[in-house]
Amino acid sequence: MKSYIEYSPNSDFPIENLPYGVFTSPKNTDKHIGVAIGEWILDLNVISHLFNGPLLKDKQHVFKEEKLNSFIGLTKPHWLEARSTIQSLLDVSNSTLQNDTNLRERKHIPIGYHGRCSSIVVSGTPIYRPYGQTLPVDGADPHFGPCRLMDFELEMACFVGGPPTSVGQRVTAKEAEDKLFGFVLMNDWSARDIQKWEYVPLGPFTAKNLGTSISPWIVTIEALRPYIVDNYPQDKPPFPYLRHDDNFNFDIKLEVDLRPESSPVATTICRSNYRFLYWTVKQQLAQQTVTGCSLRPADLLGSGTISGDTSDSYGSMLELSWKGTKPLRLLNGEERKFLQDGDTIILRGYCLDENGIRIGFGSCEGKLLPAIPFQE
Amino acid sequence: MKSYIEYSPNSDFPIENLPYGVFTSPKNTDKHIGVAIGEWILDLNVISHLFNGPLLKDKQHVFKEEKLNSFIGLTKPHWLEARSTIQSLLDVSNSTLQNDTNLRERKHIPIGYHGRCSSIVVSGTPIYRPYGQTLPVDGADPHFGPCRLMDFELEMACFVGGPPTSVGQRVTAKEAEDKLFGFVLMNDWSARDIQKWEYVPLGPFTAKNLGTSISPWIVTIEALRPYIVDNYPQDKPPFPYLRHDDNFNFDIKLEVDLRPESSPVATTICRSNYRFLYWTVKQQLAQQTVTGCSLRPADLLGSGTISGDTSDSYGSMLELSWKGTKPLRLLNGEERKFLQDGDTIILRGYCLDENGIRIGFGSCEGKLLPAIPFQE
Repeated sequence: MKSYIEYSPNSDFPIENLPYGVFTSPKNTDKHIGVAIGEWILDLNVISHLFNGPLLKDKQHVFKEEKLNSFIGLTKPHWLEARSTIQSLLDVSNSTLQNDTNLRERKHIPIGYHGRCSSIVVSGTPIYRPYGQTLPVDGADPHFGPCRLMDFELEMACFVGGPPTSVGQRVTAKEAEDKLFGFVLMNDWSARDIQKWEYVPLGPFTAKNLGTSISPWIVTIEALRPYIVDNYPQDKPPFPYLRHDDNFNFDIKLEVDLRPESSPVATTICRSNYRFLYWTVKQQLAQQTVTGCSLRPADLLGSGTISGDTSDSYGSMLELSWKGTKPLRLLNGEERKFLQDGDTIILRGYCLDENGIRIGFGSCEGKLLPAIPFQE
Repeated sequence: MKSYIEYSPNSDFPIENLPYGVFTSPKNTDKHIGVAIGEWILDLNVISHLFNGPLLKDKQHVFKEEKLNSFIGLTKPHWLEARSTIQSLLDVSNSTLQNDTNLRERKHIPIGYHGRCSSIVVSGTPIYRPYGQTLPVDGADPHFGPCRLMDFELEMACFVGGPPTSVGQRVTAKEAEDKLFGFVLMNDWSARDIQKWEYVPLGPFTAKNLGTSISPWIVTIEALRPYIVDNYPQDKPPFPYLRHDDNFNFDIKLEVDLRPESSPVATTICRSNYRFLYWTVKQQLAQQTVTGCSLRPADLLGSGTISGDTSDSYGSMLELSWKGTKPLRLLNGEERKFLQDGDTIILRGYCLDENGIRIGFGSCEGKLLPAIPFQE
């Protein structure tokens, strides 16, 4: 495939990718649905009338909305028809858009928006170091103050798609594929000292609700299909509801950079890969719904921390610094056990095949700001 | 206050209550926002033009929507003006609606809808006994099959209101009041055997996502204000972010009935009271946001199980049957340790003052259906 849009071979967003997002621009502050192509965005709102395939011709309104939920809430055949239409419109042999400079002017640099749970934020949104309760020493009284063990977690997250399911309806691993729309990068910021004090018996709560960053473009399962690799070997056969016969693991290279406030130079502190995950996302969806929990389009499934088995592939400071016992050294000479105020964490992810085709996720960035002082 | 609408003194919905909900009717399947009054519903969609107070006259569109979110997303002064307008319209001395039989015909029997998280369902929706993983004996291999220890939990839940907050923005207990819109009854159905196996270290997951029932009418804080009682005595002074000087506990009488499939007679198995909760809902909101988790209108805060200190006031079968060691006897002679297929659980809640004014919540009902067999 070749597009008339020019982009670098290192672009995350070639014509084989076509990730979905929502954007605004300085000229137009309305939220439009778009697809990233190279450095451009194809504004699907403006070209909604071109979705004339048999499935989408009566559903063009989904591209006119401010959120992706309605489009994601259609079915997998709709998603495939949309992908095919967009690829055709961007193909070098297609003149529909190519010579329409009016439409081309409407393509802009990405500023994304997402919204679902209250504190899921898009890449670029700063995160404040939280205040919270911690236990200085086991057995002592808890203390209230700024978190001292602030961490990131390298994750990916999958958007659920398709029509909503009913309460009581299981989706087994074998049935999961039609419910999986696409992936983003996710940083599940974590306050380790708060987490340690609060997590028994109901699990992490305020330690992880302070903000979760995601990358702005949803890379579809279709774009990732050429990068499917063997599933991670499982210790024992899972229960039938968790079984599926096909491979559904992905070779997605993941990197984490830490850029301290004092320096423009970022240090890559982690190199990991999506393929290290023990459970596939199909299995994850099956587990989520096994007791009958219903699904809605745009529900977001975080993967959990993605760590490899080498010490440079751990997906959090907690693991990289061996619980703070082995500080990491940054390129500017500074050391880190956990995150310091002003640190920016940058997640990147991409697939690369033998022909050099790169399907990227863009980046998921967030800067840790100092705690907002508590005033009684 | 006296309304021209006639209702029984035992009605949950006198003019002092005015809870909000969303309803349809056989004649009109569109979802309309309404307020319950006696056995009637006042259709706010149809009378939106009558909200002519200084705050709402430019916001009448919120009453035309299919969800309460926009109305709840306004501010507390807007909620107060709406309450005052509705009370005035329903007052015996006001003829605006009283003589308009056309409008009166549009009032209907409640069928409510709510939606927020995927598996929160409105009263009347059946719940299926879930399949899941359990550990038959400590140390043994887990087993996959229907839940054997199915339970209810008597809770109440508070809808968050007001404009959304930003990530990083704390809401202290002292600031919480403007963010609290109103309460519903909640049954947090729980699969105890699944919960026991899965809850370490990340807390309950599939044991509690199988369905959560809520009552259809949101009773506002304003309606509950006359029933404020002393806060529950706290063992030690909480941290400053959890402190507030006023009483914000409520004398809400709560009852749980179990109606077995074999009999039309329900047995009241629990009599409890909202006032037994250790933390106020202001403190709960402060905890939820202490690390900076943002809020959105219609976020729903469950209270946790509401149990008193007497054996007939425990809010779950787990407690009522002493973990299954002391079966409960029903009026028809059957016994229960946990729930059986066909059991209907009915939560009711109401406030009653010395003048006999009753502010009720209606009921939160759900029938437990047999597990849907798992087919590989």
